[in-house]
Amino acid sequence: MSNYNPVTPEIIKTLVDIVGSKYVISDIEKMEPYSKDEETDARYQHMPEAVVLPESASQIAEILVLANKELIPVVARGGGTGLAAAAVPLYGGIVISTERMTQVLEINTNSMYMVVQPGVRTDDVQKAAKEQGLFYAGDPCSGDSCYIGGNVATNAGGNRAIKYGTTRNQVYGFQMVTPQGKILNLGGRLEKSTTGYALDQLVIGAEGTLGLITEITLKLKPLPPKVVDLLAVFPDVDSAIDIVTKVIKAGITPTCVEFMDNGTIKSVEKFLNEKLPNSENGNYIIIQVEGKDDDDLDDKSVILDELCNENGALAVLVADPQKIWQSRKAFLEAARAESLIQSKEDMVVPVDKIATLMHEAAALSAKHKLAARIASHAGDGNVHFHVLKGSMSDEEWDSTLEVFQQEIYTLVYSLGGKLSGEHGIGYKRRKLMEQFTNRDELDMMRAIKKALDPNLILNPGKIFNM
Amino acid sequence: MSNYNPVTPEIIKTLVDIVGSKYVISDIEKMEPYSKDEETDARYQHMPEAVVLPESASQIAEILVLANKELIPVVARGGGTGLAAAAVPLYGGIVISTERMTQVLEINTNSMYMVVQPGVRTDDVQKAAKEQGLFYAGDPCSGDSCYIGGNVATNAGGNRAIKYGTTRNQVYGFQMVTPQGKILNLGGRLEKSTTGYALDQLVIGAEGTLGLITEITLKLKPLPPKVVDLLAVFPDVDSAIDIVTKVIKAGITPTCVEFMDNGTIKSVEKFLNEKLPNSENGNYIIIQVEGKDDDDLDDKSVILDELCNENGALAVLVADPQKIWQSRKAFLEAARAESLIQSKEDMVVPVDKIATLMHEAAALSAKHKLAARIASHAGDGNVHFHVLKGSMSDEEWDSTLEVFQQEIYTLVYSLGGKLSGEHGIGYKRRKLMEQFTNRDELDMMRAIKKALDPNLILNPGKIFNM
Repeated sequence: MSNYNPVTPEIIKTLVDIVGSKYVISDIEKMEPYSKDEETDARYQHMPEAVVLPESASQIAEILVLANKELIPVVARGGGTGLAAAAVPLYGGIVISTERMTQVLEINTNSMYMVVQPGVRTDDVQKAAKEQGLFYAGDPCSGDSCYIGGNVATNAGGNRAIKYGTTRNQVYGFQMVTPQGKILNLGGRLEKSTTGYALDQLVIGAEGTLGLITEITLKLKPLPPKVVDLLAVFPDVDSAIDIVTKVIKAGITPTCVEFMDNGTIKSVEKFLNEKLPNSENGNYIIIQVEGKDDDDLDDKSVILDELCNENGALAVLVADPQKIWQSRKAFLEAARAESLIQSKEDMVVPVDKIATLMHEAAALSAKHKLAARIASHAGDGNVHFHVLKGSMSDEEWDSTLEVFQQEIYTLVYSLGGKLSGEHGIGYKRRKLMEQFTNRDELDMMRAIKKALDPNLILNPGKIFNM
Repeated sequence: MSNYNPVTPEIIKTLVDIVGSKYVISDIEKMEPYSKDEETDARYQHMPEAVVLPESASQIAEILVLANKELIPVVARGGGTGLAAAAVPLYGGIVISTERMTQVLEINTNSMYMVVQPGVRTDDVQKAAKEQGLFYAGDPCSGDSCYIGGNVATNAGGNRAIKYGTTRNQVYGFQMVTPQGKILNLGGRLEKSTTGYALDQLVIGAEGTLGLITEITLKLKPLPPKVVDLLAVFPDVDSAIDIVTKVIKAGITPTCVEFMDNGTIKSVEKFLNEKLPNSENGNYIIIQVEGKDDDDLDDKSVILDELCNENGALAVLVADPQKIWQSRKAFLEAARAESLIQSKEDMVVPVDKIATLMHEAAALSAKHKLAARIASHAGDGNVHFHVLKGSMSDEEWDSTLEVFQQEIYTLVYSLGGKLSGEHGIGYKRRKLMEQFTNRDELDMMRAIKKALDPNLILNPGKIFNM
């Protein structure tokens, strides 16, 4: 893995020939933003030797042919909003940024699909659909800055996965460049297919280690006629989390069931400098439901109101959607304002195990005197448990965090859970991945990687050891 | 691929040691049923050298270790209802039948999942769920005889894919035995995950070439409170097919939108010896919708009735579900009664291209004087176009069919379609697969196969050339 060659002036020249001098960056200062994602721990950062901004799949294909010939690692980068150091060029080499590939190529309202380049921001995908009276269901919290290509590469989740699934479920197919520089189309605008291996499904979520996505055909849906966001406030974590499975079983198919604990609410309140309801002692469950008309929405709201009240809610409010989602989505930045260094755990468990997980995670963080901020896509069992370094020394932080992670992931796996619900493994969770994943499963992954990318050119050092 | 070793008496003895003498079949006559699936052309049949009926994953693991050591091919077999010769032991060797692995291991009504062995019949999965007030959404037409393990291996589709997706979408995870005989669990009872490669997604639909599925955790849903089946009869194929996209866009999320052409209706009528509505000249669209209550169902029925009438329906009837689905599901057997030899095309196209496909397919079959029976999961773009050999000579049939297939699949691929919506490639479509699939995509499949099964032990000769 350390046998890669350096990016020489000759290679820079070839890159310039491919994309034009304006779109090759080799100045240290200008490359610095490409050395990291949203993970703030400097140990997960690494400088590239060149950053290239192609505009087409064929340019990317040329770069990959070159990289194979010269044995230079290549890392694809979208919006850089990842939290697992998946887009960090761990071995230097070339970063391919998709920031110039920002076109919405087609929106077909009749057949309800959209073709986009990978550098379109997810919010812009949503907006473009909405302008045509349609709906793109993917909704990661970083939608205002993440790219749709990155969403596909990481199988991004977000707030609506409980009803609409993850990014995997929003994709008809895509064009990609293979590690060897071949351009091909995987999947298709088909509702079903059993025509050989589902390579599209394999590449989705592979974090740019098996191919570089250059064009995506997304599924669109009719806009939900009516939507309401309810905020239910509970006096403690237990009663809040207890409502989750009840809501799911109520037969109303919520779009979102989100949780924020009191520490997080206070953190967000301070960060936004805005009073939030019952912030003194409340724990939030945010429930979004869709209805075919106002009556339908009223029926569902009544059911939810009763359920929450039976479960001891302090208040059940119809929330201002803009405000409540701003609060929910501010979670990450608010926690970061408290402690720049933190460990952003992204554990996922079966939904019926989430109460156990929350309980134990709280107990473990208390045992280790670790402050934690918690927000959760509770409806799909995905818990963002951010452990704050605060004023701990580096040594104390490292050793305490290691013990905490060992304990919490032993629990997560004993509950049938996994390391990451939506952030991915990247470089940051590689060690834990090696420890907690079945050895034969890891060997299968490695065998596939080696078979499809024999020179280990694409995003080396991520997900597993090679 | 021809370097496999024969199954010797010593190997039979070892197999007996593993599963017991009662469960090893080597008698030619008793092995005969395992030499074929529901494809009736003898050219797609091949005798195994031994048939083994294990009862556990560990027994299967032992068999695969043995097969690797001795270089003997192994083919997994479920209900044998396939139509692509995927379960046929093309190179002889060992057939592993899952017919003894028939246990429903767990039904969890609270968390809505079911754990089954692979040899449970799909209808029995549905029934077991229904007894607990729950719903298993997978519904292949062969449900009364196919096994759930085969459904996963082929990513079976069926009648409800339009609303609920294919088998892929019904699976939380599964236990499988790797080609080398390792037992591992892929996927998990999780609503989302980005924890390394989605190996579960790769193995689903790989037709038993990458692993042998030994236990499956299935998603269950609440039983739809109310369901109605409407039968809309149209005077011609065009107006029938034209309604499909209109129904899908009407915002009522149908569960099924099925099509049967007049030739097929007459064929089924004769086969079942039962008068079907408007069978003289009708073409059927069967629409199933679910509702939360009778009012909801009435609302949807009114919308559908209006849509169909606007489109020139001869009649729109509330159908007896038992009767109408018996007719639909009798399609295959009825067409077979007309001609034992037939080519069962399973093409899939984008839903908005289905009218073009039907038109052209009819024109092409007429041009070649080929009788065809057509039933279609029209709502998801999947057309079962069965071309009948009838009284043609073998030579005429072969040459005519070859030209027809060349023409029709050139069209299908030009429309963005693929070879198989749900039956798979198996042995039968391998040649067409090699011709119509992108070479680099095929190479990716081959590389994965070789990486995960270096001795090419599992189900060799299927899907693609090696």
